[in-house]
Amino acid sequence: MRIKDDIKQEALFKATVKLVNEIGFVSSSVSKIANEANVSPATLYVYYKNKEDLLVSTYIDIKQKFSRAVLKNFGNNLPIRDILRNVWFSMFKYASRHPEYFKFTEQFANSPYNSLVNKEEVEKYFDPMINMMQKGIEQKIIKDVNVDLLMAFMFYPIMGLSNARSCKNFEINDDNIETAFTMAWDAIKL
Amino acid sequence: MRIKDDIKQEALFKATVKLVNEIGFVSSSVSKIANEANVSPATLYVYYKNKEDLLVSTYIDIKQKFSRAVLKNFGNNLPIRDILRNVWFSMFKYASRHPEYFKFTEQFANSPYNSLVNKEEVEKYFDPMINMMQKGIEQKIIKDVNVDLLMAFMFYPIMGLSNARSCKNFEINDDNIETAFTMAWDAIKL
Repeated sequence: MRIKDDIKQEALFKATVKLVNEIGFVSSSVSKIANEANVSPATLYVYYKNKEDLLVSTYIDIKQKFSRAVLKNFGNNLPIRDILRNVWFSMFKYASRHPEYFKFTEQFANSPYNSLVNKEEVEKYFDPMINMMQKGIEQKIIKDVNVDLLMAFMFYPIMGLSNARSCKNFEINDDNIETAFTMAWDAIKL
Repeated sequence: MRIKDDIKQEALFKATVKLVNEIGFVSSSVSKIANEANVSPATLYVYYKNKEDLLVSTYIDIKQKFSRAVLKNFGNNLPIRDILRNVWFSMFKYASRHPEYFKFTEQFANSPYNSLVNKEEVEKYFDPMINMMQKGIEQKIIKDVNVDLLMAFMFYPIMGLSNARSCKNFEINDDNIETAFTMAWDAIKL
């Protein structure tokens, strides 16, 4: 029996993200990914059942890493505006540090593999944020609208702005992230 | 000499979008695209120099169609809030009617072909909107922030919300589009 090895698994994760971003899902075969990760295909199959499992696991892994990074200083005892401001800064920094993750998830979400993901499981990672939005609605701090709408104004502008490709005139520094947060807060506050 | 034919060109446009969305950029060869469009590869080369030219032209074509649809009832004489509200509704409806265009442009923007696009030319299509934002800033109606920031709050939430894939609880109807616009307006207004 083979013993699983975190270093090999991390190498496979990185190789999957890199190869899919470079040559797409269709062309990224298990053998090419194993080769990129410097492991044998047999080793890859110790960790993943098949290509589908590898791709879906990589997607879920990215979502989990992102939610952990973003929610780590959640600070339930702060005012809602301060909690969201902390989340906003963490998201911005994470998204601009890992453009390759967001490139992968964008492509993944547009692929047939997307239907294989257990969406409820992934959404659970963001439960603390959803719960806080609901608390804000009850306390008449946040607009009483569909939570998807609140989340859209908290997430999507960041995805665009943190991407140097689409926003070449927007410099990512603390002042600009703060200005962007003020706008997002104006969108969702009552 | 062959005479160009709008019907064939439209068939090639549709075939390119469809095939790239289904099998990705790498696997979408000129011969597969010609086959999907029901034209010969020789006919395809009447319209496009090569695969690069075909893909870049398809991307620019989508951006142009989108800007025309969105800016067609621009109504320069209305108050700024009303102009932006009209643009918002047009964008929402266009984006939800043509998810395949946005899937293509998302993938394209993540591909190496993206660097071949003349960005200034594409940005010019949206000049009326940029100019209006600048007018709004001068008139102290809109926040005096980077125009990329203003555009981020006008565009990105729509891209997410109009996508049934990522927002399954958000129903696209006039009331919800109006609520979303109120939030975007709160984000950008002074």
